[in-house]
Amino acid sequence: MTNKQAGKAEIISIGDELLIGQVVNTNASWMAEILSESGIDLHKITTIGDDRQELFDAIDGAFKQAQFVLLTGGLGPTADDLTKPALCEYFNTELAFHEPTYKNVEALFKRRGFLLTDRNKQQAMLPKACTPIPNSNGTAAGMWFEKEGSVVVSMPGVPFEMKQMFEHEVLPRMKALYHEMFYARKTIMTSGVGESFLADKISDWENALPPFMKLAYLPQPGIVRLRLSGRHANQQFLQQTLDSEIQKLIALIPELIFGFDDELLEKVVGNLLRDKKASLATAESCTGGYIAHLLTSIAGSSAYFKGSVVAYENQVKTNLLGVSTHDLIQQGAVSREVVEQMAKGIKQKLDTDYAIATSGIAGPDGGTDEKPVGTVWIALAGPDFVISERFHFGEHRGRTIRRSALTALEMLRKALIA
Amino acid sequence: MTNKQAGKAEIISIGDELLIGQVVNTNASWMAEILSESGIDLHKITTIGDDRQELFDAIDGAFKQAQFVLLTGGLGPTADDLTKPALCEYFNTELAFHEPTYKNVEALFKRRGFLLTDRNKQQAMLPKACTPIPNSNGTAAGMWFEKEGSVVVSMPGVPFEMKQMFEHEVLPRMKALYHEMFYARKTIMTSGVGESFLADKISDWENALPPFMKLAYLPQPGIVRLRLSGRHANQQFLQQTLDSEIQKLIALIPELIFGFDDELLEKVVGNLLRDKKASLATAESCTGGYIAHLLTSIAGSSAYFKGSVVAYENQVKTNLLGVSTHDLIQQGAVSREVVEQMAKGIKQKLDTDYAIATSGIAGPDGGTDEKPVGTVWIALAGPDFVISERFHFGEHRGRTIRRSALTALEMLRKALIA
Repeated sequence: MTNKQAGKAEIISIGDELLIGQVVNTNASWMAEILSESGIDLHKITTIGDDRQELFDAIDGAFKQAQFVLLTGGLGPTADDLTKPALCEYFNTELAFHEPTYKNVEALFKRRGFLLTDRNKQQAMLPKACTPIPNSNGTAAGMWFEKEGSVVVSMPGVPFEMKQMFEHEVLPRMKALYHEMFYARKTIMTSGVGESFLADKISDWENALPPFMKLAYLPQPGIVRLRLSGRHANQQFLQQTLDSEIQKLIALIPELIFGFDDELLEKVVGNLLRDKKASLATAESCTGGYIAHLLTSIAGSSAYFKGSVVAYENQVKTNLLGVSTHDLIQQGAVSREVVEQMAKGIKQKLDTDYAIATSGIAGPDGGTDEKPVGTVWIALAGPDFVISERFHFGEHRGRTIRRSALTALEMLRKALIA
Repeated sequence: MTNKQAGKAEIISIGDELLIGQVVNTNASWMAEILSESGIDLHKITTIGDDRQELFDAIDGAFKQAQFVLLTGGLGPTADDLTKPALCEYFNTELAFHEPTYKNVEALFKRRGFLLTDRNKQQAMLPKACTPIPNSNGTAAGMWFEKEGSVVVSMPGVPFEMKQMFEHEVLPRMKALYHEMFYARKTIMTSGVGESFLADKISDWENALPPFMKLAYLPQPGIVRLRLSGRHANQQFLQQTLDSEIQKLIALIPELIFGFDDELLEKVVGNLLRDKKASLATAESCTGGYIAHLLTSIAGSSAYFKGSVVAYENQVKTNLLGVSTHDLIQQGAVSREVVEQMAKGIKQKLDTDYAIATSGIAGPDGGTDEKPVGTVWIALAGPDFVISERFHFGEHRGRTIRRSALTALEMLRKALIA
């Protein structure tokens, strides 16, 4: 038991369905987040099928490493469930009838108007060595085993049952056994530059972080999230250190940060517009309505977003947005002239304070030597200005649409805070 | 190596973000599905943090059990990556400069107009003992190691890069090493009814399936995919059985099927429009541009999609779409009169053969007793008709937007095949 550490946890997820990709293991990530917030150090998640030997080996491996071994799945009434026998074997115990669990199953079936089958009655047979844990949302009881300083907990795999049991029954018992380290984190949302560029800009700061703090780069198309986290026995000291390191980081790259803790750029921009009592419209060619979709995904966006014209065909650009036919022919749809006229056109037509316009070649067809696939012009019209810029977003259609939209929103954000 | 079995695989997912619940491990479930289809037996998924010892132990454990050990994550250009050194240690090798990988990084940066940093150059340093695997969507090369009958493959964690590499480079190499059972499947795409309704309709057929075939219900908002799959040693017999069962299923629910094998409804509708040389426009209120976004996500959509007006504000409905102010006041924006006028208005304005319009209350605010949150009117205007219908899509904003869009596309599809 030399490696066994207090506050260390492992999750074992059980179920064939998790190994053929039919079900994504959201139970594990949900539990992971709560453990992390509770200062418990989850160091491994193991996913295995409905196989007794694999389960036995997984429990044994985890038991040697962790104080808390958290099992989900393999507890239902159907034939493919096998957690109970494996636990009986591991803890050298046998099944016995547990009256309160039987009463719970009975009551649940009565409420739902179902008849109790023999299969359901067997659910009240539990290992003698465990403390049964009530399941208020289902028929399968949880089981809590303690041995040699470790705890093994078995919970049902149905998320609705597992979550209730974990939050209200299991976690409080875990906390009573362990409270020592505190955890804190802050995520910084950046936009407009890549991971390596960011890493170079902040490497001195990153290298000077105290050893109990850790930085993670989490990139998505157009966005890189920087997550700073730490774990320490002194909660106040931890929070102060985190705050002060975040302040240093903000000072290094103020222009790249649009928000914190998974805030959406479309929400940040919406809040800025609302605060300024300003309105917005979009005129979209290559983004095809995606910017409007992002903006209107935010509840309450009708307070600042008036609408959009998706001008996919050139005639829509001239008829609805007043783009000059001459410029369309001379410069092409993907040009500074056209995208600026689109922005000015929609701003005037919908009578807004700001307008965004995009025109580009999302691909895979339509590229030329001069304007390859991924070339996108973005324009922003404000109360007394129009600016525009050309970008290259690569060959992948979906990513180009997404990066164009985020870049356009970022241009607007910069203008709103200027 | 007594337990080591041909065709047995393990996945090791690496990344702190997976252990604090910030990112759900969709890479593993995506890969699990493909492995299952390929007749490869995935028996374990292990998720660990950015920790060298844990990684080393996980590789060692998997190597002893499986023919294929598949690693994702821990390969990016930043400091929190550690897979390469751990693999060098495990395979007792060292890093060396790999020219083709360098050229790939260089070309990618050139295309995107970025400057190459030293950090990026280091990505071309690869373990001598591995076969490098090209990454056509990013800078981190994959690595393929072979030893004692097992293969260890390291891939990037970014889904966009990993998926391309796994499907086009890794899986073909794995199949060349292992083939025994054949796998076949067909997915039927249905729209408009729920899972339980479908299950009742097809239960007799489902219960009579041969034992080597399996049906899975894969529901999404507005869509249920039915995946029929089988595994058999006789490839021809398997395929014939699959085809004949699929024909029986189609005959049971012809009106509910819009496509096959993960075809997108927006693509099916696009193909129908293209075949008919017909054009389409949308006028969107509650869907906020999402229908236009779905349509324009399909490459080549400019052949039939002309554009959209996102009329979020009522004034946009009257000014750009010609909706009657009187009806807007009398009936409200969420009404048959208004949504039909929106459809007719955009059809005329953009001079198209078909037009779709939506108007509804996506929520969370704006609901009334008469028109609760989730109430949506959808209209379809064709060459010589306008039809409209009212729906209730529930309280969740994002799902209401998605279900409105899919329902509108399904209305159009039905009209196009009528």
